[in-house]
Amino acid sequence: MITVLTGGTGGAKFVEALKQLLPARQLTLIVNTGDDLDWWGLHVSPDLDSILYVVAGMLSKERGWGVEGDTFECVEAMGRIGAPAWFRVGDRDLATHLTRTQLLASGRTLTQATAEIAAALGVQPSILPMSDERVETRVATPAGELSFQEYFVRERYRPEVRSVRFLGAEEAVPAPGVLEAIAHADAVVLAPSNPITSIGPILAVPGIRQALRETEAPVAAISPIVGGAAVSGPAGALMAAQGLPVSVAGVAQAYEDFLDLLIVDERDASAAESLRKSGLQVHCTNTIMKTAEDKAALAAAVLQLITPSAARAG
Amino acid sequence: MITVLTGGTGGAKFVEALKQLLPARQLTLIVNTGDDLDWWGLHVSPDLDSILYVVAGMLSKERGWGVEGDTFECVEAMGRIGAPAWFRVGDRDLATHLTRTQLLASGRTLTQATAEIAAALGVQPSILPMSDERVETRVATPAGELSFQEYFVRERYRPEVRSVRFLGAEEAVPAPGVLEAIAHADAVVLAPSNPITSIGPILAVPGIRQALRETEAPVAAISPIVGGAAVSGPAGALMAAQGLPVSVAGVAQAYEDFLDLLIVDERDASAAESLRKSGLQVHCTNTIMKTAEDKAALAAAVLQLITPSAARAG
Repeated sequence: MITVLTGGTGGAKFVEALKQLLPARQLTLIVNTGDDLDWWGLHVSPDLDSILYVVAGMLSKERGWGVEGDTFECVEAMGRIGAPAWFRVGDRDLATHLTRTQLLASGRTLTQATAEIAAALGVQPSILPMSDERVETRVATPAGELSFQEYFVRERYRPEVRSVRFLGAEEAVPAPGVLEAIAHADAVVLAPSNPITSIGPILAVPGIRQALRETEAPVAAISPIVGGAAVSGPAGALMAAQGLPVSVAGVAQAYEDFLDLLIVDERDASAAESLRKSGLQVHCTNTIMKTAEDKAALAAAVLQLITPSAARAG
Repeated sequence: MITVLTGGTGGAKFVEALKQLLPARQLTLIVNTGDDLDWWGLHVSPDLDSILYVVAGMLSKERGWGVEGDTFECVEAMGRIGAPAWFRVGDRDLATHLTRTQLLASGRTLTQATAEIAAALGVQPSILPMSDERVETRVATPAGELSFQEYFVRERYRPEVRSVRFLGAEEAVPAPGVLEAIAHADAVVLAPSNPITSIGPILAVPGIRQALRETEAPVAAISPIVGGAAVSGPAGALMAAQGLPVSVAGVAQAYEDFLDLLIVDERDASAAESLRKSGLQVHCTNTIMKTAEDKAALAAAVLQLITPSAARAG
């Protein structure tokens, strides 16, 4: 069994490739919910949705979020009625938010609601929110503290980031199954997601970091930083704000207490060499997922590195 | 000032014509909310919406409900996810339900929420729900009691109707402004809406019937029954179930304690003559609103009959 910790768009590409290579029941996905937001009175879980949609084969390839071929009539109408419209919920996407909101209102936990939606979409891998409690990623900027979506979508990650915190994390507990999925995995993989605001919230839930330290499974991470910059999005600025070097060394540092293997891009071969001297196992391969072939090759390489048979062969 | 009591699609056509002939501030619309439903966790007020949309020029002419040119991607997606999809909410229409639900959740009354939505849509006439409390039209059938939308939309009004009741009506009070709009009107008009399930719930709210009896304004009704049958919809079956003749005489009987003037179709000239003998003022004209000209002519005829200058001239 492979357990993957992942965020949204970045991790979704990797998960998409991984699910082609593994039987669904061998895959458990632990997903960031720090980006969740109340939007028009609905509970929106952008990262859970991206993972649900990519596994269901519904994710928009063009946008990297939302439903393929979706329309945006409702959000346009919301704009005309004077409601905020900067978070662009698609019309088909809305069905997921409406369903989740109803399930939560009826007393289901986020884990249960996610499982019911996954079943309805025909999704087989186990998709777990990191926690059933609300944990909210908050980004401090010169203009004040923003939610992650305000920072990322509304402000298009232009504001300077002073710090990041995870509101509610201290009181949160891991969702049912999360600690077990880490403890009993054959391998744990941190997807090439933003270490601060995609993986960071998961690690901020008390108990998860410890489970990663204690699991007997190898823990691997794929660096979302290539050549001293994020492949996409604001990971660089966010890492810098949290005092981490914007480099594969910074990724290694973010995960240093539990990481066994770091997978970095070929362009970071020299940085990889330095990291190896510190005792970390580092593997260089192409990590840029532009084509389906890129994704498949990266997922195959990671599986080769982390699965027990491959480990024995190594 | 003209105050109109109205339901959804039937009354909407009349209101559409009336608003062409009157300054917006002279028109108050008291709307049935007995059809309201919780749908996907949202508060949907079909009749309020039909009236809002028709006054805003947004009502679908083809369907007679919902927003002109709307799409149905969300409801299709809800169906795929396993949610009920028989009540076909359009994607743009959803914006109204999301907004109303949020306003109600934030503590606004239905009257306040309606006013805010009306303002956002640029609607000037005063649109009032009959009550801020929930009153639910329940239709007893051989297969059990149904909500109005279950009976009307889901079952396409095929079940036999045994009786109709208005759950919650006894405890409800008229929404702010309703009694005043009746008391201080120059004329009150009951739109050609279903007397049982469109006008009936309004009359079931304690105080409204009395206000109609006591107002000094003339109270007129346009019969939705023409030639012994409803112009559209299940009004006939519903009237019969409530013990009323399915005729203009039945309409007169439904409103007998407060009605001053009944406007019936030319085809009911002989029935009109009988009603006149009982002392009711009855006017015959074309009441079938097929074209814009039909609607305008009917609205003009009604205004001519009920406005004080016309009354003086008469």
